[in-house]
Amino acid sequence: MASVSSPARPHPLQRLNDGEILKAKDILAKSHDSGERLLFRFTYLEEPKREDMVKYLAAEHQDDKTATLPTLPRMVKFVYDVIKGPGEHTLADAVVDIDSGKVVHTQTHPTESQAGYAPFEFAQFQETCTNSDMFKEALKEFELPPNFTITIDPWPYGGLDPDENIPRYMQGLVFARDASKDNLDANHYGYPLPIIPVMDFNKKELIRIDRLATGGKGDPLEPAAASDTPKKLFANHKSAEYVPELLDRPLRTDMKPINITQPEGASFTVAEDSSLVSWQKWRFRIGFSPREGAVLHDLCYDGRPVFYRVSFSEMCAFDFGDGGAGRSANNLGLGCDCLGAIHYLDVWDTDPEGLPTLSKNVVCLHEQDAGIGWKHTNFRTGRAVVTRLRELVVQFVITLANYEYIFAYKLDNAGNVTLETRATGIVSVVAIDEGKTSAYGNIVSPGVLAQNHQHIFAARLDPAIDSYDAGETAVVLEESHPMPAVDPLTNPFGNGYEVRRTPLEKSAFADAEPKLNRVVRFENRTRKNEISGKNVGYKMTPSATQLMLAHPDSTQARRAPFAQHHLWVTGHRDGELWAAGEFTNQSRGEVGGVKAMVERGDWFGREGRRLMGGDGKLSTPVAWVVWGLTHNPRVEDWPVMPVEIHQVHIRPADFFTSNPALDVPSTKNETSVLVSSSSPCCDAKEQKKTTDSQQEDPVSHMQGSGPDVKPKDIGSGSKDGKDKKRFTTLLSGVFGKKE
Amino acid sequence: MASVSSPARPHPLQRLNDGEILKAKDILAKSHDSGERLLFRFTYLEEPKREDMVKYLAAEHQDDKTATLPTLPRMVKFVYDVIKGPGEHTLADAVVDIDSGKVVHTQTHPTESQAGYAPFEFAQFQETCTNSDMFKEALKEFELPPNFTITIDPWPYGGLDPDENIPRYMQGLVFARDASKDNLDANHYGYPLPIIPVMDFNKKELIRIDRLATGGKGDPLEPAAASDTPKKLFANHKSAEYVPELLDRPLRTDMKPINITQPEGASFTVAEDSSLVSWQKWRFRIGFSPREGAVLHDLCYDGRPVFYRVSFSEMCAFDFGDGGAGRSANNLGLGCDCLGAIHYLDVWDTDPEGLPTLSKNVVCLHEQDAGIGWKHTNFRTGRAVVTRLRELVVQFVITLANYEYIFAYKLDNAGNVTLETRATGIVSVVAIDEGKTSAYGNIVSPGVLAQNHQHIFAARLDPAIDSYDAGETAVVLEESHPMPAVDPLTNPFGNGYEVRRTPLEKSAFADAEPKLNRVVRFENRTRKNEISGKNVGYKMTPSATQLMLAHPDSTQARRAPFAQHHLWVTGHRDGELWAAGEFTNQSRGEVGGVKAMVERGDWFGREGRRLMGGDGKLSTPVAWVVWGLTHNPRVEDWPVMPVEIHQVHIRPADFFTSNPALDVPSTKNETSVLVSSSSPCCDAKEQKKTTDSQQEDPVSHMQGSGPDVKPKDIGSGSKDGKDKKRFTTLLSGVFGKKE
Repeated sequence: MASVSSPARPHPLQRLNDGEILKAKDILAKSHDSGERLLFRFTYLEEPKREDMVKYLAAEHQDDKTATLPTLPRMVKFVYDVIKGPGEHTLADAVVDIDSGKVVHTQTHPTESQAGYAPFEFAQFQETCTNSDMFKEALKEFELPPNFTITIDPWPYGGLDPDENIPRYMQGLVFARDASKDNLDANHYGYPLPIIPVMDFNKKELIRIDRLATGGKGDPLEPAAASDTPKKLFANHKSAEYVPELLDRPLRTDMKPINITQPEGASFTVAEDSSLVSWQKWRFRIGFSPREGAVLHDLCYDGRPVFYRVSFSEMCAFDFGDGGAGRSANNLGLGCDCLGAIHYLDVWDTDPEGLPTLSKNVVCLHEQDAGIGWKHTNFRTGRAVVTRLRELVVQFVITLANYEYIFAYKLDNAGNVTLETRATGIVSVVAIDEGKTSAYGNIVSPGVLAQNHQHIFAARLDPAIDSYDAGETAVVLEESHPMPAVDPLTNPFGNGYEVRRTPLEKSAFADAEPKLNRVVRFENRTRKNEISGKNVGYKMTPSATQLMLAHPDSTQARRAPFAQHHLWVTGHRDGELWAAGEFTNQSRGEVGGVKAMVERGDWFGREGRRLMGGDGKLSTPVAWVVWGLTHNPRVEDWPVMPVEIHQVHIRPADFFTSNPALDVPSTKNETSVLVSSSSPCCDAKEQKKTTDSQQEDPVSHMQGSGPDVKPKDIGSGSKDGKDKKRFTTLLSGVFGKKE
Repeated sequence: MASVSSPARPHPLQRLNDGEILKAKDILAKSHDSGERLLFRFTYLEEPKREDMVKYLAAEHQDDKTATLPTLPRMVKFVYDVIKGPGEHTLADAVVDIDSGKVVHTQTHPTESQAGYAPFEFAQFQETCTNSDMFKEALKEFELPPNFTITIDPWPYGGLDPDENIPRYMQGLVFARDASKDNLDANHYGYPLPIIPVMDFNKKELIRIDRLATGGKGDPLEPAAASDTPKKLFANHKSAEYVPELLDRPLRTDMKPINITQPEGASFTVAEDSSLVSWQKWRFRIGFSPREGAVLHDLCYDGRPVFYRVSFSEMCAFDFGDGGAGRSANNLGLGCDCLGAIHYLDVWDTDPEGLPTLSKNVVCLHEQDAGIGWKHTNFRTGRAVVTRLRELVVQFVITLANYEYIFAYKLDNAGNVTLETRATGIVSVVAIDEGKTSAYGNIVSPGVLAQNHQHIFAARLDPAIDSYDAGETAVVLEESHPMPAVDPLTNPFGNGYEVRRTPLEKSAFADAEPKLNRVVRFENRTRKNEISGKNVGYKMTPSATQLMLAHPDSTQARRAPFAQHHLWVTGHRDGELWAAGEFTNQSRGEVGGVKAMVERGDWFGREGRRLMGGDGKLSTPVAWVVWGLTHNPRVEDWPVMPVEIHQVHIRPADFFTSNPALDVPSTKNETSVLVSSSSPCCDAKEQKKTTDSQQEDPVSHMQGSGPDVKPKDIGSGSKDGKDKKRFTTLLSGVFGKKE
């Protein structure tokens, strides 16, 4: 490998540090009028152009240690408001080159483009509401139990109606909290109020209070008119506590500790600049942005690239675009969010003034055992060889008001890549009249309706299969089809089937087709597997999960076309990282998302170069994989829901010339122990004895011929069969005497 | 709970012991003529009738400890051959009542019904082949490298052609092994020969040698005619070793141990007779049969029944019916097949003479950590409550010649039940001419073709949702449908969707419908969830995996109709445990499998009672869930394939009145440790410090406002907000000065 960057100069993909942010912010500030104030919303590394970066990576990955690495600029991307006076906000973005000290890109955006909410807006929204006469007036419609206090959850406004003006809105879900418990973590979500304050952020005032219907089946969707006497709330509500000291039941005491220890240390190393990770032939860099959270760059196995970049991109509620997944990342706790030997990453973000702020422990790395990895027992000799599947997990957890998502990249020692999401936290709820039920959701607590909803995720995969050359990577859909007939020439027994390949040469979308076993293959067009003769590749099976149910004419559907197909394949363009476009907040429709990318009709690959015309540059395909969860809440999802787990599996497919985990040792773990029956049965002693002896040489029982027969040589062959007499003896016991 | 059986009398669901088997075998033997010899093929517990058993369970589960438990018979089921003379085999089955000493059921079967192969037949097959002149003659067609020896894998014959006679056949896949390695575990599967000997087991002789085609794309499917000079085999073949001492590469040395220990012991107990297991409010009995492997009986959560019985039933290659999954179960090794604190089960089987034989360590039980179970961070206070998902795993591993399957039942502390299968072992291969490729499979090693194939599994679920009353359990298909239009009265924003329920009152099959989010709900018709008002239940999402690709006219399709739909719901009948029927070996079509069960049109449930007529007995629905893997082999699957994992998830759905894992303590694990960067970066010291302090009270960073702001009270409400000034200060930094 060529010499790496000196400590003085960070690697081009390394996360920004505080000095870089500060320097870039100062450069940007100086480029603005002194009368303009800047409000910083998102700050992250502007990655080098892919075309430049792959040259760097090619040099970096060379064996020649004297190779010169190209010098690539370190650049910072800012998304920010330019404030010229009260309410006079203009959204802008800029890229600052730290080395040259120049602002190399700057753009202002029309009010149709709204950046995601910054956390300080949550506080301001709460302030505005609680100080508002309009809000105070609205609260008078209700009578709360004594000692209940109001809590407001900030909430994105959603998509605007087509004829609506475009201020910057925020809305709020209003709850009450039982302050008599004297615990700020008493759960307010069990006490929803049927009002929604809406704030104009430019004017810094509430513009209206929406009222919610609280009826059930058969009732109209309109809210009831306000009555003269305050409506008495929460008379029969149950508390919904989850913090241990407020729980309505004792904690279980029978869950004994499971300790996971690595006496020789972890098998992974986090080298040099805390971004480069090596583990079990895998090697990658971890990036992090306030929008995406953790990102994997330059993912290689045994020195061979697999992905240029892997990231989680968006969700159908725009948690990335409206909120910011990275910015919502939890500070993880040792011994809580992962067990074992853990490495944490800290990342630098900015505050609203553009000053660097350190986010601690926002990503954790650890390895874990995942059960049997491969096993074979030779039934002739009884010898079993069994290895363990080992995973490296890169995990971050985000909190979006009531809800949590756990995102993880998992690599394993068999060359597999898994994207995992876990949904947990507190389901979104609204008030419903006591005793009523609804077709739109489930009653999870008296008077509390958890609405049916969907979570749809998009991840972005930028494959680089065994080469970073933009012309080399191909995307192929492969399906398994039944054959049309029993045919003596092609399908004599009727059990044959046909594998069909459809290479994608142009941007397109597609859906999962489990009936056809549709898999997506990422392949290198040139490099062949020396054994099979097929293109080296990785394959992904898109999950056949339900796609967006919202009507195509709805604002929701128009804003998130990505959620309408399981797979999008687009031509790579630098900076295109967002499945629903860069500015999703209050969008009326997708701008610059996967739908637009497909519609522009990029061709990729070498054929594409010929067909594409224009600048003649090679394009490389980017895949966007979409999966989801139709979440019709269960009562069990209350007050905090058990994780709903989903995994996307990406596996080598003729990338290697044999099982890449073949060299995993079948070492026996020395710390495992036996658990006996609490009332040992008659054979417990013998059992112990046998098990001990089997630790050295587990013997398959599949011969099934009883303890007094050790058929070590069943079928050991006509030429070297030994001890054949034993079988004959056994068999004669059954057949011999009579026959 | 009522008093349990005395040690002298086993629980009615307890696995058979050696004394019982011996006694029953003697009773059976005495019932036969002295001139008849018996060849025992399968021996297992004949479970009590469900109707009787649920009365027992109702009494057993009562709080009244003085309740009398019904006395249920202990019965043994035998499947065996009656041999009256050479080649004169008659298949029979019998049930022996140990208490009365009587044979209570006996039946002989026509030759159309063939029991699965018994392991001793493997040895006999090998003997017959290697002694056969026909086989020796066939081998002369080939020239093997020096020191190669012949090894034959026994293989079920498959389904007979309609006009074929019905002897008992076995066929063999022929391989060579490099004996020069002086290691009986040298892998023969890398050296396939293109011949298949077929044996008539009744006549004890080979009847023919089938020759296999070795051509590739474009070649005919017929085998080439035998040449005068022996065909030279394996000239350029690669060895395919997997045992460590023969590997062609060094073992990796960088996989450091992960030790999983339970210093306070395991959280589960295996009580009294080694069949009753208690863990985290779950309680069940483990059965085991040579056909099914491990079975869960009487699965209850917190004393409430969920399933009467759960089992794996069949596969599309009839590994259960033709082979016997339980009989093929590996003897597991401590520290190899599971890590941590492990309990093993031994089970009694019989040898061909009906004598009891002990199979050691064929099932392992252990608990494991499975990541975050539920989490919520209060973004106002920064307090995170995070709990771990804990699983109890009941696992067994079977070897069927070249191939391995790992079956597991997983229960967790959130009330979920998961059925897991892992496919591993050595893929089935045939010879192909060197340099050729095939449309029917992949070249995994020179001259070795791994054919495309499918693995389709069926599990049998006998639900008993909160009641064992046969009339109480219902099966409902639930789907989520888009609404037809944006409509001001019902769907004003176009984002609504409709949940539709279709109760199944009559036996039926159905497929997974991910586009409709089809879930199968097992419900109690009477008991309502006191919160939601809905029927208490569990739900299962059938996996949308590809179904059988074989042509409907093929023998394969006719033998395994179960593999043509993802779900079958049938009316319960005692003893019906087999998705493809009891006798699958050489079957021409399904007899007594799910297709037949559906076709007989049972109605179940209370409505069913009225409609059913006949004996007027209540029927209860049994669900058969089917999933699979279309396995188009990768080069990576050679020589032993990394596990392909599949899980079926069954989750409570309004069974509980809140998250059942709410009482799981959020205890911090004390043995987790930090892993630093190997070249610490500038803030490594500070990082260590911060992380330590956060162990006590992990603070969410989602406020994103930087380290000098601790917005503990963001949104803490208008009435009890404290320290509000801090925000005002922060906000004024951005807005205050200018506005």
